[in-house]
Amino acid sequence: MRDHKKQTQGTYSNKGADYISKIAKEARIASRELASAPSQLKNAALLRAAVLINKHVDELIAVNGKDMAAAKQNDLAPALLDRLELTQPRIDAMIESLEKVASLDDPIGSMDSVRYMPSGIKIGSMRVPLGVVGIIYESRPNVTVEAASLSLKSGNACILRGGSEAFHSNQILSKILREALDDSGLPAAAITQLEATDRSLIGQLIGSTEYLDVLIPRGGKGLIERISKESKVNVIKHLDGNCHVYLDKQADIAMAVKVAVNAKTRRYGVCNAMETLLVHKDVSAKALPKVADELSEHKVELRGCSKTRDILINYQVKEATENDWFEEYLAPILAIKVVDDFQEAVNHINHYGSMHTDAIITDDKTTGEKFIQQVDSSSVMWNASTSFADGFEYGLGAEVGISTDKFHARGPVGLEGLTTKKYVVIGDGSIRP
Amino acid sequence: MRDHKKQTQGTYSNKGADYISKIAKEARIASRELASAPSQLKNAALLRAAVLINKHVDELIAVNGKDMAAAKQNDLAPALLDRLELTQPRIDAMIESLEKVASLDDPIGSMDSVRYMPSGIKIGSMRVPLGVVGIIYESRPNVTVEAASLSLKSGNACILRGGSEAFHSNQILSKILREALDDSGLPAAAITQLEATDRSLIGQLIGSTEYLDVLIPRGGKGLIERISKESKVNVIKHLDGNCHVYLDKQADIAMAVKVAVNAKTRRYGVCNAMETLLVHKDVSAKALPKVADELSEHKVELRGCSKTRDILINYQVKEATENDWFEEYLAPILAIKVVDDFQEAVNHINHYGSMHTDAIITDDKTTGEKFIQQVDSSSVMWNASTSFADGFEYGLGAEVGISTDKFHARGPVGLEGLTTKKYVVIGDGSIRP
Repeated sequence: MRDHKKQTQGTYSNKGADYISKIAKEARIASRELASAPSQLKNAALLRAAVLINKHVDELIAVNGKDMAAAKQNDLAPALLDRLELTQPRIDAMIESLEKVASLDDPIGSMDSVRYMPSGIKIGSMRVPLGVVGIIYESRPNVTVEAASLSLKSGNACILRGGSEAFHSNQILSKILREALDDSGLPAAAITQLEATDRSLIGQLIGSTEYLDVLIPRGGKGLIERISKESKVNVIKHLDGNCHVYLDKQADIAMAVKVAVNAKTRRYGVCNAMETLLVHKDVSAKALPKVADELSEHKVELRGCSKTRDILINYQVKEATENDWFEEYLAPILAIKVVDDFQEAVNHINHYGSMHTDAIITDDKTTGEKFIQQVDSSSVMWNASTSFADGFEYGLGAEVGISTDKFHARGPVGLEGLTTKKYVVIGDGSIRP
Repeated sequence: MRDHKKQTQGTYSNKGADYISKIAKEARIASRELASAPSQLKNAALLRAAVLINKHVDELIAVNGKDMAAAKQNDLAPALLDRLELTQPRIDAMIESLEKVASLDDPIGSMDSVRYMPSGIKIGSMRVPLGVVGIIYESRPNVTVEAASLSLKSGNACILRGGSEAFHSNQILSKILREALDDSGLPAAAITQLEATDRSLIGQLIGSTEYLDVLIPRGGKGLIERISKESKVNVIKHLDGNCHVYLDKQADIAMAVKVAVNAKTRRYGVCNAMETLLVHKDVSAKALPKVADELSEHKVELRGCSKTRDILINYQVKEATENDWFEEYLAPILAIKVVDDFQEAVNHINHYGSMHTDAIITDDKTTGEKFIQQVDSSSVMWNASTSFADGFEYGLGAEVGISTDKFHARGPVGLEGLTTKKYVVIGDGSIRP
């Protein structure tokens, strides 16, 4: 019995491996064609996809209804059901996003750092696609269109693995996208949605270093952590955002309160929300009650160090524990610490933070610049709210993801994150002595 | 007995883990200081190291003598003994290289893509160090100085693990480097040579994602492959160079022969040497005998496809097998294939090549540009010898390594490969609506 089971698993796993290697090879071949496809062709395919989606709205909603019905039967949480649902406005938003991506500048083909060397060669760096991009995501079917369109625009082929709840919706969307490629004279294999949502296929995908150039997991922290840990393929990963605002002793208090409140309350469940407020001791007595007044109105729970609690004795402030400094609440909760000096603030951020986004409020130029230099985070801000940490706010045009890593891409990642460079050398029969 | 052994191993491995985590934490702290160290200070430390090495030449040669004696006793191959040995000219070269690195532009702190957004924020990208760099290398002790100086210049702390044969030489060199840091007011922990060469320490190092930002293995392909495969830390890896030259039908034959011969014979054991020559059928009868004449003088063994052998019937040409097209000979051997057209050449390179460096010889601009676009290699050349693929020839000033990967760094890697960027956002109390 045991042997039989083993054999079955083996066969199954080989089937998965064969399937992934087949589609990945096809994607690799398609990626070569896409790498040198002119912008007009890529844009034509994006706009054609918009037209086709518009044409198939009723079918899309009907197919999505199947996914919704199954999800309801499986008692999916209301929040997940909401993400899964395709409605007319959501489909319109997809169409708009396709048109938007078509209108972006093509990141591919530009040459920079062109220089003439004394040896006689001319050398430059040309921006080129990474090749084949794998994207693993959860329940929202619109990610299928978003991920595929960003890959296509940047000249990459993509292999998509959407959530099992959205299986039918993702299949039809991918079919439409492939039809758009085909109609535009581009290879359909440049966009592939996995034909099944077996977890074993993810296992195959994350081991495919030969065929995949990068993996982008999008979704909950659990998914991202698991994939980052197990993947043999390079991953652009987005883990947590434990963001800080530091009110310096030379902060304009009114500005500081405004920015801190915005950073905390604009949206609670986002990675760029402030989770800990640090306040210089010289201004803490003046600033903290003002911050507490405003945050109380927003019903934000406060957790403070002992100095904070002494100052905010008339407010309800829980005692912050060591864990609070590490916490990404993603909720209306704020940890507050009074620090003795600038260096304590920087050290606190570098120790407890997640290197996502951290801000200083100060009127002193030297202090602002020191903060920018010394805080080791992907976004460092001076007199601005951490809420600005976002690809669109940064003018990237599109957001492939946010990287909490330092390698290859860091912070909000635009189309450029799906590209690499190659050296181009031009000579006139040049040889090296 | 078995239990005892297990316990010993356990204790040992914990000891290794504790040691690595201790030095890596110290390196992380030092890296924060180095990240904002002014160029003058970093350069002063580099020049101080040059002075100290010059002062300790006799001691260096004596200590290296111990390593040489042990290596001879262990019957190390003559080539390895040669790499291990420190001589006055080699020490002079180390000193020169320190002075050279000091004279390079500091890659850190420059801001680019600065833009003002409609929201009122100003945003830019600042180049910053990766943080802590691990470098694992083999017998040459001068790599200790080279690796440490490039890390220091780029504001990174480094953890070095040199080959066991060079243990004593590496220890004294690292001691000198740390003294130079200390003399210049920089933290000595920014340069650490492992205190032992146990392989288990490498195991700990390649698992230290928390403390290490990148690993650079330098040495044989075996070492690099093993580390790349097992490392949890990001690796800048340099695997093989199976480089091609393609003689197009519109090639200037004299130029083609000159370039091909240079690409093959300049040096045989290097990654940028040509290993396969592709020739368009229209010019093969004219070009191949000329190439064969010259290569025969250099005693290069030829292995050809059947068409090649038909043309070169008067030369000794072995039959090339499928394996030959994949082979990186690193030797005076050349595979030759006649292709029917441009596309066959490109497909051959993309299939059999290692995406290192590939060149076309053609007088036709359109064909040259198509080659540049379609060949998926880190360096693509037009009318130039593959021998130029080298950080110094590319004007990078220094070569940290050559990356055969596409992620983070590709092709010859200069100091910039040891850096990343962070977003800097400056506002005037800006909040996001």
